[in-house]
Amino acid sequence: MNTKQCVIDMHAHFFPVLRQEEAAQYDAGRTPWLRINEDGKNGMILIGDQEFRPVYNALWDSAARIEEMDALGVDMQLVCAAPVMFGYACQADTAQRWCRSMNDYLIENCCSYNPKRLKALCQVPLQDIDAACREVSRAKSLGHIGAQIGNHVGDKDLNDPDLLTFLAHCANEEIPILVHPWDMTGLGGRMKKWQLPWLVGMPAETHLSILSLILSGSFERLPRSLKICFAHGGGSFAYLLGRADNAWHEHGKVRQDCPHPPSYYCDRFSVDSAVFDPKALRFLAGIMGVERIMLGSDYPFPMGERNIGSLIQGSDFTDEEKAAMLARNAKKFFIIQ
Amino acid sequence: MNTKQCVIDMHAHFFPVLRQEEAAQYDAGRTPWLRINEDGKNGMILIGDQEFRPVYNALWDSAARIEEMDALGVDMQLVCAAPVMFGYACQADTAQRWCRSMNDYLIENCCSYNPKRLKALCQVPLQDIDAACREVSRAKSLGHIGAQIGNHVGDKDLNDPDLLTFLAHCANEEIPILVHPWDMTGLGGRMKKWQLPWLVGMPAETHLSILSLILSGSFERLPRSLKICFAHGGGSFAYLLGRADNAWHEHGKVRQDCPHPPSYYCDRFSVDSAVFDPKALRFLAGIMGVERIMLGSDYPFPMGERNIGSLIQGSDFTDEEKAAMLARNAKKFFIIQ
Repeated sequence: MNTKQCVIDMHAHFFPVLRQEEAAQYDAGRTPWLRINEDGKNGMILIGDQEFRPVYNALWDSAARIEEMDALGVDMQLVCAAPVMFGYACQADTAQRWCRSMNDYLIENCCSYNPKRLKALCQVPLQDIDAACREVSRAKSLGHIGAQIGNHVGDKDLNDPDLLTFLAHCANEEIPILVHPWDMTGLGGRMKKWQLPWLVGMPAETHLSILSLILSGSFERLPRSLKICFAHGGGSFAYLLGRADNAWHEHGKVRQDCPHPPSYYCDRFSVDSAVFDPKALRFLAGIMGVERIMLGSDYPFPMGERNIGSLIQGSDFTDEEKAAMLARNAKKFFIIQ
Repeated sequence: MNTKQCVIDMHAHFFPVLRQEEAAQYDAGRTPWLRINEDGKNGMILIGDQEFRPVYNALWDSAARIEEMDALGVDMQLVCAAPVMFGYACQADTAQRWCRSMNDYLIENCCSYNPKRLKALCQVPLQDIDAACREVSRAKSLGHIGAQIGNHVGDKDLNDPDLLTFLAHCANEEIPILVHPWDMTGLGGRMKKWQLPWLVGMPAETHLSILSLILSGSFERLPRSLKICFAHGGGSFAYLLGRADNAWHEHGKVRQDCPHPPSYYCDRFSVDSAVFDPKALRFLAGIMGVERIMLGSDYPFPMGERNIGSLIQGSDFTDEEKAAMLARNAKKFFIIQ
């Protein structure tokens, strides 16, 4: 073993300490809140009176988070909203208030605990693109080093003209974006058990987002300065790229809006490392290149990488490549000094 | 180069020469039919008056098929229905008549042209499991060497008790099964363009089917003699297996009905080779083992492997491994002399 490498985890979530009455001031039927158990260590996210998911204190308590980061050897975490907080289905003005409040909270109540080790990615009211552009710029001025967005807003994918306006705004303002899958209602309602929306729905959602962006020709129009990263290693995209490239070559409808095969655009985006299998990480690096993979854990959720960084650290990449994936790529992508 | 290896393509489709009036005798609103252009070489599948997809004569004309097989060096093809022919949404008695008719047609009008080189996989009325069991046994007696089924029937996945009854029946009767994705309506209706249902929907459907079968614990109850193969390399399953295994270990809901992690069950099914990328095929072999991959092209559709077998032949597997994937595994799986 050599000297410890710097470790930056660029995909980690938080949730605010928010009582039901406080959440109800936004949209009682949609805004999530937190019930903390008497032990102070475990809790439940709820929407209205409906339990959404059990969670533990690293999600809301920066002291607990830093303690775990110390134990795991994580130097820095980029923290963003749990997707249940996106609020895209709320009225636009409610979503604006909510996003402002959450972005303020994340800086003031989470990152402030240790601003050198906890960095913030903001959230925006994507159902109102003007408001989203204003909020992402405001958040940057507060200290957010990027933005997290959901991979779609209702039936609008990232290639929707409004969403492209937002992406171009972020490119022009040098605000990096993390795209997170959410709202996995698809596949005919057949993902009812065994967390299938997380196992099947999320990677398919991300795959759909990347391909929609590519096959719509959007990368031809977006500034090259756009920095956009997809969670969970980009979902199924990399593995199914051969299928997409073959289809582009063989089928006129696949290539009708896109002048190059999908693989041509792999240098226009990054992915995180949350693929949970050294062979999958090696495959992913073969498609995306090591320089486009950043450590992301999905912490502190149970289906994330519990032992943050262990997949990269235990891999057979060179020390140089590991250092790139563990921290250097994220420093460059998010302009971290 | 060495002597030519035997090549068996176990995933190829046909469509009958069927006029609109003939199709209307089944279910005019659902049964597809074929319009052949004046050139005799190109045509269109329609449902009622609605154009479904353009096709060419290798799909319905065995002479044209054998000519292409000769040019491509394919010794044998296993031919099955195009998924649009499944008929699972028809009334059960209509579907029974339709399946009988199509299974008779495939033997009498397609495979009969060259029974040594064209083998048949039957279709069954899966909405009526008793009828499906009867028809699959009848088809076997006609000469069908296996059955193709869709990966779901309405909202029933393969772990549905009825479908498990059918799978167990096939296991007991030594009838191998090919599972093909179809009915890709999912992901919030956001797969409207660029053939996205084929690029994103199909691999996600197959992923969902395999995981549903595994996480329901169905493999614990199904006979080990069941021979089941999933199309398109098993969709996203292999690449996302690490995510599923991690979730099984970390989340009680994922493992609640399944005593082993998903990777434990990889020796219970096979996949075809239609992944279109040598690195993806190598990855797939690392997960499934070479002995569980069979050449399958999805011929004669444009998003299949046009140059059938070239992915395996051009790969860096050993000659022994190539021979297994090109023919030997299929001979064993489908009991081909």
